[in-house]
Amino acid sequence: MKIAGLQTAGTPGDVEANLRELDAACSQARAGGADLLVTTELFLTGYDIGDIVHDLARTDLLSPAQRIARRHGIALVLGAPEYDGGAYYNSAFFIDPTGAMLGRHRKTHLFGELDRRYFTPGDRLSPVVDYAGARIAMLICYDVEFPENVRAAAVAGADLIAVPTAQMQPYEFIAEHLLRVRAWENQVYIAYINHDGDEGSLRYVGRSSIVSPSADVLDSVEHGNQLIFATVEPGTVRKAREANPYLADLRPDLHAAAPASTAPLAKDRTC
Amino acid sequence: MKIAGLQTAGTPGDVEANLRELDAACSQARAGGADLLVTTELFLTGYDIGDIVHDLARTDLLSPAQRIARRHGIALVLGAPEYDGGAYYNSAFFIDPTGAMLGRHRKTHLFGELDRRYFTPGDRLSPVVDYAGARIAMLICYDVEFPENVRAAAVAGADLIAVPTAQMQPYEFIAEHLLRVRAWENQVYIAYINHDGDEGSLRYVGRSSIVSPSADVLDSVEHGNQLIFATVEPGTVRKAREANPYLADLRPDLHAAAPASTAPLAKDRTC
Repeated sequence: MKIAGLQTAGTPGDVEANLRELDAACSQARAGGADLLVTTELFLTGYDIGDIVHDLARTDLLSPAQRIARRHGIALVLGAPEYDGGAYYNSAFFIDPTGAMLGRHRKTHLFGELDRRYFTPGDRLSPVVDYAGARIAMLICYDVEFPENVRAAAVAGADLIAVPTAQMQPYEFIAEHLLRVRAWENQVYIAYINHDGDEGSLRYVGRSSIVSPSADVLDSVEHGNQLIFATVEPGTVRKAREANPYLADLRPDLHAAAPASTAPLAKDRTC
Repeated sequence: MKIAGLQTAGTPGDVEANLRELDAACSQARAGGADLLVTTELFLTGYDIGDIVHDLARTDLLSPAQRIARRHGIALVLGAPEYDGGAYYNSAFFIDPTGAMLGRHRKTHLFGELDRRYFTPGDRLSPVVDYAGARIAMLICYDVEFPENVRAAAVAGADLIAVPTAQMQPYEFIAEHLLRVRAWENQVYIAYINHDGDEGSLRYVGRSSIVSPSADVLDSVEHGNQLIFATVEPGTVRKAREANPYLADLRPDLHAAAPASTAPLAKDRTC
C-alpha cells in the first residue's frame, strides 16, 4: 500500500478553503499512486483558531470530506474537531475510498492549555483499521510522544500508525528524534504529518516524515506545503520484528499489558 | 552529585586485570570529583567469554570491588555475573563509598542467544537507591530499550538511570538516538556505559554517553577506553518535568501502571 501525507499551513478557520486543498491533495496523491492520504491535526478547521473551533465542530464537516474521498477513490486519515453528546473532541477519522467511515480516534493525551480549553480527552485507545492489506492505527500529536500509546497500537496489530499533528516550536526534537525511536521500538511504520507556518500564537516546525519499522526516514519535508509518499509493506514489519523482537520479548509479568480498550467504531454510527 | 562512566574494552575473562582497571578508574573518577562510577555490563568478567562466566560467577567477585570502593570513597554501579540459588544472573550492583551493598538489579530482558544461554532473567524491576541527594535506578543493556522499564523507574522516583551495557554492531541506533528519547520522555538522566573494541564474536559500538532530562548529551565518547563525566541535579529533573509534563499527563486509566515490583535489596543480604 502506498500512502501520502499532506504537510500544510492550511487556512485557519476556513473550512471551504481547506476542503478545496484536500480535494487538490487527493488528486495529487492519487496521481502519485497513493491509496491513503493522511492530513494534519484538525486539518479541516485549523488548530489555534479560538472559540470558532466549537462552532465549526457543530457543523457537518465530514460529509464533504467523505464525498472528496469517494470522488478520488482514496482513503483519508482526516483531522477534524468532533461534537458528540455535548462534548468536543480533537479527532481523526478513517474514511475509506467509498466514503465509508471505518474508524475514529479521539485524542487521549491533550497537550497544554490550548487543547484542554477546547477539548475533552478520548477515553479509549485507537481502533486498528484493516485497509488495503495493512492494519492502521491513529494517534494525534502528543499521543505519539507516550510510548504506551504506540506500544498498545503495535500490540493490537498495527503495521502503520498515522499521526496527524500540530507540533510547534520548540519541540523539533519530537519530529527529528522521537518519531524514529517510536517506529524502531515497535517495528511499525509511522506517518507524522504536521502543520507548517504560523497560526495564532504558534510557529509550527513542519518536519513531517514517514518512518519505516527499522527507523529509516522514507520521505520527509522540512518546511512548506508538500505531499510526502512511502510504501507500507506488512511483510517488512514482519521481517523487522524478526530482526528486532521487542514485541516478542515484552514481559507482561513485569509490566501490565494495555487493557483491551481498542475497538473499531460501531458499524452503525452515522457521521 | 557528579558521576563518571568507564567505557572500556576491559580484559575479557581476567577478573584480576579488571579489578586493577577498576581501581585506576576509581582513582581517576575521584580526581575528577565524581561521587559515583558506572561500569559496563559484566565489567568484572567480560561478556562474550563462554562457559567461564559461570565459573567466575561462583567466585567472590564482589568483595574485592567493595574494598576498592571503600578505599577510594566512591560509589559504584558495577556489572558482574551473579550466582544465587542455583541460577546465574546478569546483574548490576550498587555499592556505596563505605563498600556497603545498597541495591542490585538482575537484567530482566535478556538479549538473544548469548544472554539466554548463560543467564536467568530477573523477576523484578530495578530498586531505586537513595545516594548523595539523588535517586538512582539500574537497567542493563537491552532493558533500557524497552520504554516500559525506564517509565517504571521514573514513576518510582528515579532521577538517574545507570545503564551498564554491552552494545554491539549493528545497533548504533540505540546509543545515538534511543537513549536521548528515553531521557526526554521521562525527564531523567541516563548514563549509558558501554564496552568498546572486540570481544569473542562481538564488535562493540562504544558511544557511551550521559544524557540530561532534556535529552542533551552532557558527555560522550565514540571509541576508546575513557571516563566520561556529568553532574546530576534532582532540581534539573524537577524543572524538566515542569517543562515537559509527561509523567503528570500519563493515563493509567488507559494504560495499566507498572506493578510495584521495585524493591530495595533486603538489608540483611550478604554479598
